[in-house]
Amino acid sequence: MAKLGRYVHTLRLFADVARAKREELVMTTFILAFLLLLASSLMYYAESHVQPEAFSSIPASMWWAVATLTTVGYGDVYPITPLGRLLGAGVAIVGIGLFALPTAILGSGFVEEMARRRERPHCPHCGEELP
Amino acid sequence: MAKLGRYVHTLRLFADVARAKREELVMTTFILAFLLLLASSLMYYAESHVQPEAFSSIPASMWWAVATLTTVGYGDVYPITPLGRLLGAGVAIVGIGLFALPTAILGSGFVEEMARRRERPHCPHCGEELP
Amino acid sequence: MAKLGRYVHTLRLFADVARAKREELVMTTFILAFLLLLASSLMYYAESHVQPEAFSSIPASMWWAVATLTTVGYGDVYPITPLGRLLGAGVAIVGIGLFALPTAILGSGFVEEMARRRERPHCPHCGEELP
Amino acid sequence: MAKLGRYVHTLRLFADVARAKREELVMTTFILAFLLLLASSLMYYAESHVQPEAFSSIPASMWWAVATLTTVGYGDVYPITPLGRLLGAGVAIVGIGLFALPTAILGSGFVEEMARRRERPHCPHCGEELP
Repeated sequence: MAKLGRYVHTLRLFADVARAKREELVMTTFILAFLLLLASSLMYYAESHVQPEAFSSIPASMWWAVATLTTVGYGDVYPITPLGRLLGAGVAIVGIGLFALPTAILGSGFVEEMARRRERPHCPHCGEELP
Repeated sequence: MAKLGRYVHTLRLFADVARAKREELVMTTFILAFLLLLASSLMYYAESHVQPEAFSSIPASMWWAVATLTTVGYGDVYPITPLGRLLGAGVAIVGIGLFALPTAILGSGFVEEMARRRERPHCPHCGEELP
Repeated sequence: MAKLGRYVHTLRLFADVARAKREELVMTTFILAFLLLLASSLMYYAESHVQPEAFSSIPASMWWAVATLTTVGYGDVYPITPLGRLLGAGVAIVGIGLFALPTAILGSGFVEEMARRRERPHCPHCGEELP
Repeated sequence: MAKLGRYVHTLRLFADVARAKREELVMTTFILAFLLLLASSLMYYAESHVQPEAFSSIPASMWWAVATLTTVGYGDVYPITPLGRLLGAGVAIVGIGLFALPTAILGSGFVEEMARRRERPHCPHCGEELP
């Protein structure tokens, strides 16, 4: 029972961190959406005339952009022109920053939430905050 | 000898951080397991009729889900339908969050553990806490 | 209106963190550029005689280096000689460190910026710092 | 000149963080080496009889293990048996932890080093610590 209480407590910690950092996480999602659109559009103009099937439209190029920005890199679609590869390299490097943002935000969120909790008294049995 | 003592001390630090964040890390594993099951099930319904071999069952689709959520992306299995690619893009983006959680948890764990240790006196020779 | 103000506030937080950590982020970019050049040059000497098309020149080898250091790994170019694979393994492992640097820098930036803000009074309505 | 001094200062910050976390980073490298050896050995026994060329020996299997643990995933080598895929999934998930460790260690290192520096007086011109 005490053990289950601890996990409920942990789930609440996760929810509190997510709530405290709501705006930052939404902003990160907006930045990601903007980068996806920009990368897809640029790559469409760089590669569609050489690989008309893989980069048939801007929405189709998004499949490549998602695979590259998230660093999944299936390898079913990739640029082959020098300009396309230069763009692709830039997008892949920006992908590192994309991993950095939510991690940095959540990391600072956990540090702050844990500090906030330590300052308030808690029940030693169930871990709940005391009034 | 003093050097070996330092590494034993470091190993203990790692163990202390892992112990202090046990519940959070177990919770992250549960979230990962849930995401894997959800992604595999959705992808099975989206792709199995087009790629019956790669997505032959929900457990088989899990191989794709692991490769995508962890951003390994071998490229032996990937969605080809528009719906499958939309789902796959979502799963790949969620994968960024999957890297963020353990890193943020362990990061705050190291910050807290180091702060806790600084407050207590330590032997300057072996690094052990003094009573 | 209050909600929009919050997002403007968040965007300013991101800009403040980026400004406070400007030198560290520029330094990380320099380190990345140096690693890219080093990895491309070494791989060119290890693989160009076996795969003259994929590793035709040092700039061409950079395409492989970017894909590996960022852990995208499309799989269109990869080393096949034992020496090339040893080098490639080293570069892939260094890639983990490449993800660590900006995340660690931005993470400490968010922690410090949030601490700095908590110390100053803010308007409870718009979130702006009071003079 | 003042600008150059700032970058020298930043380079020193990086070196100080790396020195302060030397033991933790060496320990992480040991853990990585151990995981590589374990993953390669297990995969060799699971896959060598089905793919004798890709997994011809334990050192050869290491090429797969590096590509998976670092989440590069070129896709030139991957398991095809159910047991091999189960092992591969485990190794890929452990790879998330591998990204978490150095990031968390360096992150706490930057937080601590910046706190240490703030407590001591610095020259406002060159950023050097004053005695």
